[in-house]
Amino acid sequence: MTKRFDVVGIGNAMVDVLARCEDDFLGEAGVEKGIMQLIDMDRAVDLYGRVGPAREVSGGSAANTIAVVASLGGQTAYVGKVKDDQLGAIFAHDLRAQGAVYGTVFADKDAADETGRCIVLVTPDGERSMNTYLGVTEFLTPDDIDPVQMADAAMIYLEGYRFDGPESHAAFAKAIEATEGAGGTVSLTLSDPFCVERHRDAFRAMIRDHVDLLFANRDEICSMYQTDDFEAALSAAASEVGIVACTEGAKGAHILAGGQRWHAPAKPVDIQDATGAGDAFAGAFLWGHSQGHPLELCGRMGCAAASEVISHIGARPEANLAEIFRADGLV
Amino acid sequence: MTKRFDVVGIGNAMVDVLARCEDDFLGEAGVEKGIMQLIDMDRAVDLYGRVGPAREVSGGSAANTIAVVASLGGQTAYVGKVKDDQLGAIFAHDLRAQGAVYGTVFADKDAADETGRCIVLVTPDGERSMNTYLGVTEFLTPDDIDPVQMADAAMIYLEGYRFDGPESHAAFAKAIEATEGAGGTVSLTLSDPFCVERHRDAFRAMIRDHVDLLFANRDEICSMYQTDDFEAALSAAASEVGIVACTEGAKGAHILAGGQRWHAPAKPVDIQDATGAGDAFAGAFLWGHSQGHPLELCGRMGCAAASEVISHIGARPEANLAEIFRADGLV
Repeated sequence: MTKRFDVVGIGNAMVDVLARCEDDFLGEAGVEKGIMQLIDMDRAVDLYGRVGPAREVSGGSAANTIAVVASLGGQTAYVGKVKDDQLGAIFAHDLRAQGAVYGTVFADKDAADETGRCIVLVTPDGERSMNTYLGVTEFLTPDDIDPVQMADAAMIYLEGYRFDGPESHAAFAKAIEATEGAGGTVSLTLSDPFCVERHRDAFRAMIRDHVDLLFANRDEICSMYQTDDFEAALSAAASEVGIVACTEGAKGAHILAGGQRWHAPAKPVDIQDATGAGDAFAGAFLWGHSQGHPLELCGRMGCAAASEVISHIGARPEANLAEIFRADGLV
Repeated sequence: MTKRFDVVGIGNAMVDVLARCEDDFLGEAGVEKGIMQLIDMDRAVDLYGRVGPAREVSGGSAANTIAVVASLGGQTAYVGKVKDDQLGAIFAHDLRAQGAVYGTVFADKDAADETGRCIVLVTPDGERSMNTYLGVTEFLTPDDIDPVQMADAAMIYLEGYRFDGPESHAAFAKAIEATEGAGGTVSLTLSDPFCVERHRDAFRAMIRDHVDLLFANRDEICSMYQTDDFEAALSAAASEVGIVACTEGAKGAHILAGGQRWHAPAKPVDIQDATGAGDAFAGAFLWGHSQGHPLELCGRMGCAAASEVISHIGARPEANLAEIFRADGLV
């Protein structure tokens, strides 16, 4: 039976606040370069007060991925919590305008927290250092998971960042149960090496017991398997998961499945802002996979989408990815 | 005596919501191409619901101009009303982070209206069609004008759009009185041909009695003097105002003062988004003028700044304008 959705994503809903800065500023402001760090509202206000002029663009890792799948014509839905405030309205609009179904109930106007935001500091090398105030998105609960929607998903895509938060594991479990019960498959992105540190056991259990398709980058997969040996980490993941799609920055992506392995080269590009590279890779890969394309081709689509996203500031594609795929001979 | 501020701007404070669209969409959505149209909140919600993914960037015509002056190192302040909401916080942050003084009291959280926003639809030719929900910025009153600040301005810069709104003329009058009383000068931008239509008598009286430096584009100055004859309009303006700086799109800018006339050529550029071209021209011109540069050079600085702004989406400069001026041999 055909499912209504190719991919349903679950993640932290946020609006990115993108500002350029020099490397020195990161040190002065106490921001660790290249990773995602969680901050509270006071810190968010303080940091925002110190950064230069910024621009606001809808973000959220899985939401970026879903936006990519939708932009390619995939049938998608997204689950993640925002508040009934202006940033929440922006987040909801941008996702729906891209064609995704987004029906998560907004946190009420009088909730203590606001819609989550991520202050993304982009240094001259294009690297992004993320400072995330989770806000209401931390409080996604099992009640926000609609089993009917999950059952209607050929695949669900779970965001590793979403392992933070009091009821997130229960929410994931409910989604997985509904999807698997209806014959759908489960994909997961590790999201961030420190996120993996915080929740390694939960990640491990989910990977071993449920994940069919694992997305990660080199740092994340090494953190997951607690090794500096990238090849060992790849092998360990491939022994537990049907398909592993692991990015390695400018070296492209490695796809492992069924004892086989492929390499998809990265497309050379002038990096403006690395934000969303992994999200875009996953989105294009998932779309290709949903269309039944060979895994190697899915990997090349992922690399092409990632290149587009890092060629400008902001984590979602600005160009027409389908046209890029045609120009690159991928479709 | 040296004044604290080179330029103090007064205008409509807003956040731009920038979305690309095809020309067909403008017709379907009832948007007139290339101009600024005022819309109410219901229309804003409806239109926003129909446009594609967008991005939010601080805007407001005079605020963009002040941001340019500040980015070049000028001492600036801005007056314009936002609400104590998330978009208001974004507007205030971006202006202050650029180095401008911004102290207008926010409209209270329980005000019926929200921070103003402008849904800017950018067509493939780079033209922008603006749909402005004024929100609380319509309600700037004389109480928001600090005579001490105005007296401390070498020049004030008044935004033509600000002629809309119940107490705007009184607020302008208070600012002009304080500035002129302290020996400062008054500059004005006509902003928009239809805005000129709505308030021609008030514009005329202000131009004749107070304005020392007038900014306009071809359509606006023709609307002002109710003629299709651009040269006649330029002459009429020059007979009433000390300095006229009039842009003409890809044909550059014309500067008229003291019976003399100069032409500043536009810098050829791939137009991505025309939003803010006039604002950036005025900002760079004002900065050059505040530095005592010859008017022709001020015009060339204006054209260089406008070219930077239209080469990307968003109305404020992304590159370092001072570096561009150096590279172009303007400083």
